[in-house]
Formats: sequence, structure tokens, C-alpha cells
Amino acid sequence: MLLKAKPLRLDAKKRVVILNMDDAAELDVKPMDRVELRVNGKRENAIVNVAEKAVAKGWIGIYSRVQEELGVFSGQQIKVDPSDPPASLIFIKKRLNGTPLSRHEIMQIVRDVVNERLSEIELTSFVMSLYNHRMSINEAADLSMAMAATGKSLDLGKKRIYDKHSIGGVPGDKTSMMLVPIVAAAGLTIPKTSSRAITAPAGTADRMECLCPVDLGLEEIKRVVSRTNGCLVWGGAVDLSPADDAFIRVEYPLSIDPLLLPSVMSKKKAVGAKYVVIDIPTGRGVKVKTVSEAEELANSFIELGKKLGMEVSCVSTFGEQPVGRGVGPALEAREVLNSMMSPNRAPQDLVEKVARLSGELFEFAGMKNPDSIAAEMLRTGKAERKLRQIMEAQGGDPDIGPEDIPVGSRKVTIRSAKPGRVWWINNTAVIEVARAAGAPKDKGAGILFHKKIGDAVRKGDVLFEVYADKAHKMNRALESKDKLSFMGIGKSMEMVIKEIPGDEEQDNYFVLER
Amino acid sequence: MLLKAKPLRLDAKKRVVILNMDDAAELDVKPMDRVELRVNGKRENAIVNVAEKAVAKGWIGIYSRVQEELGVFSGQQIKVDPSDPPASLIFIKKRLNGTPLSRHEIMQIVRDVVNERLSEIELTSFVMSLYNHRMSINEAADLSMAMAATGKSLDLGKKRIYDKHSIGGVPGDKTSMMLVPIVAAAGLTIPKTSSRAITAPAGTADRMECLCPVDLGLEEIKRVVSRTNGCLVWGGAVDLSPADDAFIRVEYPLSIDPLLLPSVMSKKKAVGAKYVVIDIPTGRGVKVKTVSEAEELANSFIELGKKLGMEVSCVSTFGEQPVGRGVGPALEAREVLNSMMSPNRAPQDLVEKVARLSGELFEFAGMKNPDSIAAEMLRTGKAERKLRQIMEAQGGDPDIGPEDIPVGSRKVTIRSAKPGRVWWINNTAVIEVARAAGAPKDKGAGILFHKKIGDAVRKGDVLFEVYADKAHKMNRALESKDKLSFMGIGKSMEMVIKEIPGDEEQDNYFVLER
Repeated sequence: MLLKAKPLRLDAKKRVVILNMDDAAELDVKPMDRVELRVNGKRENAIVNVAEKAVAKGWIGIYSRVQEELGVFSGQQIKVDPSDPPASLIFIKKRLNGTPLSRHEIMQIVRDVVNERLSEIELTSFVMSLYNHRMSINEAADLSMAMAATGKSLDLGKKRIYDKHSIGGVPGDKTSMMLVPIVAAAGLTIPKTSSRAITAPAGTADRMECLCPVDLGLEEIKRVVSRTNGCLVWGGAVDLSPADDAFIRVEYPLSIDPLLLPSVMSKKKAVGAKYVVIDIPTGRGVKVKTVSEAEELANSFIELGKKLGMEVSCVSTFGEQPVGRGVGPALEAREVLNSMMSPNRAPQDLVEKVARLSGELFEFAGMKNPDSIAAEMLRTGKAERKLRQIMEAQGGDPDIGPEDIPVGSRKVTIRSAKPGRVWWINNTAVIEVARAAGAPKDKGAGILFHKKIGDAVRKGDVLFEVYADKAHKMNRALESKDKLSFMGIGKSMEMVIKEIPGDEEQDNYFVLER
Repeated sequence: MLLKAKPLRLDAKKRVVILNMDDAAELDVKPMDRVELRVNGKRENAIVNVAEKAVAKGWIGIYSRVQEELGVFSGQQIKVDPSDPPASLIFIKKRLNGTPLSRHEIMQIVRDVVNERLSEIELTSFVMSLYNHRMSINEAADLSMAMAATGKSLDLGKKRIYDKHSIGGVPGDKTSMMLVPIVAAAGLTIPKTSSRAITAPAGTADRMECLCPVDLGLEEIKRVVSRTNGCLVWGGAVDLSPADDAFIRVEYPLSIDPLLLPSVMSKKKAVGAKYVVIDIPTGRGVKVKTVSEAEELANSFIELGKKLGMEVSCVSTFGEQPVGRGVGPALEAREVLNSMMSPNRAPQDLVEKVARLSGELFEFAGMKNPDSIAAEMLRTGKAERKLRQIMEAQGGDPDIGPEDIPVGSRKVTIRSAKPGRVWWINNTAVIEVARAAGAPKDKGAGILFHKKIGDAVRKGDVLFEVYADKAHKMNRALESKDKLSFMGIGKSMEMVIKEIPGDEEQDNYFVLER
């Protein structure tokens, strides 16, 4: 059926078209069915909505994405037919029954995912098939390759490309922001792409954005890396693994991640990485609870790396408390800048973690004393200069100081109601309080720790400060802190299992706003 | 945020609203996110689309369903907030990991399904959790009860209510259309609701619709049953198990049915059935391939029936060829009417199946010689009169004859190219050819068999006829027949495994249409 295009300037993220009810009846399609559109030598499918009056018979209302992708103008004729089921449906069914898939079958599925030929039901079924019957390493390798092949790739024209990834879960983990300048300052190439936070108070892209722009295109990234050896950019802007974005959307509501391995490795493949260090935070309150789980995951990453032509090394790190002191984009960006400028006063756990992970990359590079290079780069100021070079190359002001980064205008200081020692910090509570305070959307919101696990505490000592921009968010954050077991302080471990810290002191904090 | 309603007369089957991009940014929601709408004391959630211009700032464009359900008028203020995740998400996650659910948890999930608080991703995840970790009988019972409780129910004010169900898969299975009048004529109450075909050439509702209306409301059904003891109506019109409709939408694209048991039994519960006979067609080309599979399924149905206070009996029937001769709504309706009027000339397999299944119900009723009652009802004409009474009560013409039912205006006769015996008929091919010819949408389209398994065939004998209304559909059906192994004819079984029957003869058939 030929219908005339009526652009609607409506956005549903998906390809949606609106048919008049008579035309829909003639085509025998109902709302939510799919139709195939053919115009300008292109062929794409779309989800059907139906109009009583808003779209006249003989016309087809098209949402923005359809208009952009097919390049149609108002009144142009589009050929519209009911869609056939996607080619990969039969493979999804097969996988659902536990049969491993071939390279060809996986490629077909990933192509249909990227071209959005699968409905939400079909896409979710595939993800669930992987959740229920674990992938083999061969499947993971085929999936990584297919995901990278259907996205863009970064060709730096170099053979020795280094990369780093954390499987995440620890609040305040600003390791990448220090590691990249250190590794680049030592002469290795490290084009780091990062995500924004979805469920965390900050992702590396959110932190770095406090220092300079992060949403660069592929050509800009090439330019930055060729000038500085490194970059710290948002991966979402460059479409390295568009299938992964679709998979993550399914995994997110159920908080499952059956595609963890191909998700990470497809992106490393897409930037041409040959040597990769993977941080596996381990412990209570993060994804991987025990060292043996961490070892199992590490082996899978290493084995998958081999299939993909990469050397992978994994480090299981202590994940039971925030890394460093700051949690939230601006507080973390400040902490990084301070730590680069005055490494002697930097939090010891942060510096050790950075040194340990970068050491793995220096070892891949065959450098001498790989574990001491990070300290050298920090001590000599080379790392700081490199960070500022990268900031400048990405379009930021290279000369800003830590105090130039604005943090929340409201601050509440939490002091200890009793003496003792900090025995534990609850990551889940830290994340929830920081997000309630406004992070990552309000960049200045978050938590600044003054005491961490093992620290001695006197009555009245400052334990941490909560930062927020808006009074109602500060209130929500404080309520959330009171409700959760946030931090355990006492004479011994067993005395503090359900402890919640005590006194609050208001600095620059007013409940009434506007 | 308060926004003014702008009704759009658009239908997406789902609750969709369109926000202006500025308002969406202010609410921090993106396309495909969910918002909660509050107005007129009602609270409902909806999926977000975003408009650049089509909806002005301060307004909210609402699709038809939202307008109807919330009863809002143009310009009325609606309170709009981002939605919290649905309460049942945590239970779905639990089930996904294989933990059986409690009655309370199942009820919460079903409520969220019926109220459409679950996204497609969340709904699909639940169905997949049942596919991967089979339900216990307790879960199936809780699910059946929850599905019935969240739908409407038929209260006939009687204790002894009978019902019949087939798990389907055999083309031409018009058993219910004969069984209901027979059982009702013998004095039992049988309020039969049926589905329309989704993947078959005809459902009982499609067949019955050739004789009289089938989309009756609950009150009309009550009236019909109180007058005639029975009915043959479309279940989709009465919302007995709205959750089931949602589950089926997920099961359909992957052709899986983990919810088979609660799907069937929730509907039997909703009509108040106490005695149920279930037909399990068995063999190659249907869902259940072997007698031992059929026994396992039968035991599950019987056990589940006990939990739900129903007596269930199951019959495994021969499912390897169509039942009777006609396949397609009108051809089958004709065949039923003919068989009721002249039982002596009715297809033997059809009559036997009807007698066997109705016998189970007569036995539940404690009647003497239960297996011979059906024949008696047919022989005396009581069954035919009852069918016509039901047709009249449902709003049809009780006096129509078989020839009054229009069948496809185009017919192609297929004759055997050689002598021998019919060894097999391929159900899948029968279904595909009948659907290609236009069934169930074109009611007169389908196939009429002249030979079935075991019949002797001479060269040139008519094997079957294909009926269609439109030339291009007839062409498609014939192509489809030629491509598939449709029917095996030969001297012995092993000679005919890949046989496709031969000569075609055109009656009233022209390729050029209009």
C-alpha cells in the first residue's frame, strides 16, 4: 500500500508510525504490529499506532526517527506492508531451549537487534535465554565480535593499544581518571571510553565532565589520542557497540547482566585494544562477593580475551567501601585533581589501586619495575600535566584548580555520637544517599568521607559530609541515611552490626527553599 | 507537575502520552519511560513519547485509551510524575532465579500485569522465568486463581457446570461445536467460551461465527445459557482472564506456552466449571507428540483441577490428521450443520471423537451408558434442535441450511497422480495452505478433504479441494502446497515420505483479479 508521509515531530525513541484506521484494516495490522516501510531505496520497519482522525486515510504519520532515517519529506509516498517475523526469531527460540548458537546465528540476532527488527518481547527473550543457560566462551567470543562488528570502531593505526575496565559497583571509584593520564604519561596509548552512571552516583564520564567535555565524536577522539596518547570520553556518543545499549536496556530493570563479558569485550575490541586490565571489585556490597567468584570471572575474561586476540589481566580489589573520600561527580573530580597535584596527601587506597592496575599495563608493555612507574609519574608531575593536556585536547580549560569545580551549595556534617573505630561502610547505603542528594544529575551533590574503615573515631569527630544543591533533595538524602545502616562505629565489630551514626550539624543548610 | 490534557484520538493499544520536550526534561523522563497520571481520583501509568512541537509546553497529549480510562476532557489538569518501579519486580527477579513464588507474590505480579504496570521487558521476563524453571502445581493453582480473580466471572447460580477444552493443534477440529449442543440437549449446563484462531485456520469462535454472533457480553451469555443450557461464544469479549491475554501476547512470537495449565484452568474457574474434559490431541504434527507426554500433561491437569475444586478428565486423541473433512471457518460450520442433520453421513472420526469426549462429561453427571448418549442425541435430532436454539439465542437465524453458508468463490481441485493409499497428512502443511488461502480472515477459505489416512486412492481421484475468495491468495496457497510435503500416497508407507500430490484442476478459478 502506498501512503503519503506526514512528519509529526514526535519522539518515542523507537520507529513509530501512525496509520489511519481504514488503512490499518486494509493492511490487516493492529496497534503494536510491525510494518515494513520502503522509500528512497531504503527499507525499515516500524511499530504501528492507529488514528481515528489525526491522520487521514491515504497518509502515514511518522515519528522523528522514521523521518530522519528514511529521509522522507512531507507528502512523499512510502510503500507500506505488514512485516515478516525477523529472521533471527528461530535462533532465539533455539537458544531459549538451551542449544548453543553458531557464529552465523549470533550475527543474525545481533544484526536484528541493531536494526531494531526485534520487538521488546523478542529481545528480552534472547537476553533471558542467556541468563538461563550460560554462554560458552565460544558464544561469548562470537557475540563480542558481532557486537563490535555492528558498531563503529576506532582505528588509531597503532598495534599496541592499552585499555582498562572496572566491572563496577564501588561508589567513588575514580581510578580510571588517574590511571589514564599516568599510563599515557608513561608513553602508552590508552583511548578510554566510559559510561555515565545508570544506578551509581557517578560514572567516569560524569566525573570527567566536571573537568572538560566528554561527548566527543570518533574523529575528535582520534585527534585527542594522537596528541596526548589518551582520552577520557563518554562511550555512548560513539556507538561502539549499539547492540550493547539495547541489551543493557533489558538487563537494567531486573538488575541482571548475563551479557557482562561480551558487553565489556566488544567495546575493547571496537577501540582496537590489545592489552586490557580488568578491575574486579570484590566483597560484601558489590557484584562479586568472594575471591573465588572473582577468580572464576577473571578466568572467563582471560580466556575470552585469547579468543579475541587480546591479552587480559584481572585484579580483584577490595570493594567493601568507597575508593578515596569523595562520592559524586564534582567531589570526585576535585579529589582527582587534588591527588594529581599533591600525591603525598592523596588517599592511600586510591593511589595504591591506581598503581596496582596501571602496573599490569606497564608489565604488558615490558617496562622495568612496572609497579613503581605510577608513583614516579605522580611524583614528577607528569601525570598531572598529562591530565591537563587531555582536558585541553577534549575542549576544557587546562588551568582549573580543584576549588574551581562547584560542589553542592548545601552541606550537612555528620559527627560520631560515640568513640570507637569504623568497622564497616555500607556501599548500598552510600549509593542511595548520594543519589537521593542529587548525584549524578546534580554534579555537585554527594558525600565526602572524613573517616573510613579502620579509622579511630572520637565522640564528635566528623564522619562524613553530605552535599546537595536543593533542600528537598538534602532532606531526602538525610532521611535515607537515617533509614539505612550506613556506617558501623564501635569498640569491636560485633557491637555495631545495626548501628546508624548519630549527630548532625548544619552548615549552610536551610530546609526552606525559594 | 500539572499538565493540561490534549486528547489525540490515537490508539497504540497501550497507554501512551506525549509530553513536550521541555516538560519531559523538567520531569527527567525520556521517551519509553513511564509516568504516573493522577486525575479524577484515578491513578494510572503511561508510556512517554516526546514532542518537539506537536504538544505545547504545559500540555500532555493523550492517546485514546488514557482518555477513556481516566475520563478526562480537553484542557483538564492531570498530575504527572515519574513512575516508581512496579511492586512485583522483585518477585519476578526472584522467580527468574528459580525460587518458587508464594500466593501473595503471584497475586501481586498478576495484578501488575492486568493493570499494565509492567513494561514489555518485565512481562516477558516473568513468562521466561516460567519457561525456564517449570511451575509447581501449587504455583499453577495460585496463578490460575489470581488470573481468574483479576478478571470477570460468570455466575450462573448453579453448582454443576460442565466444560470442555482442547489444547489444540489439529486443523479442522470442530468437536466443541457438536459437543456443546449434545451435552446441553442431554440436560447439562455447558457455557463454552472459545478463542479465535491466532496461528490456526479457524478457532471455534471463528467457526461458530458463520452460524450466529459470538461476541456476547456476560449478561447476554447468562441469558443464552439459562434458556438453552449452553452457549458457544468468543471468550475474548468477556475478559474472563485478562492476564492470560497479556501472557499469550508474549508466548506467541516464540511459540512457547509455559502458562498452558493456568491459562486453561483460570478460564474454567471463571465460568464456574466443576467438571471439565480436556482433549489432548497426540501425535506427529501437534504439540504433544507421544502418549507418555500426553499422560504427563493429563496428570498435571487432573492434579491442578483438584487444587481448584474441579474434577478433570483428559482424553488423548489421534492428532495426526484433520478432524472430519473441512478446514476453515465456513467449510467447518457447513460440516457441523450437515453432521447434526444427517449423523449417518457424518465423518466417522468426528462423531467418535465427539462421543468419546462428551461421554466423559456424562459420566461425571452419573448418567447411564454415558458413551452412547451422544449418538442418541444425534439420532433423535435433539442435538440439531439444541444447536439451532443456541444459534437463535445468540442472535442468529436458526433456520439456515449448510448451503446458506458461503464458501470461497474460487475452488481448485487436487487429484491424485497415481493409485495407492493415503499414508499421512501433514498438519503443518494443511494449516499453512489453508491460511495462505485466506483462513480465518476470509471465512470461506480453506480445504475440503475427500481422502484421509487409510483411504484407497485411484489415479485421478479427488484428494482435496482448496477454497479461496481472492486469486492472489489462491495462488499463494497452491504455491505453498507445492513447496510442502502435504499428503503421502503410495503402495506402502516408506515409499511416500517426501511425496507431494500431483495434478490440479481449475473450477471457477482465474488468476487475474480486478
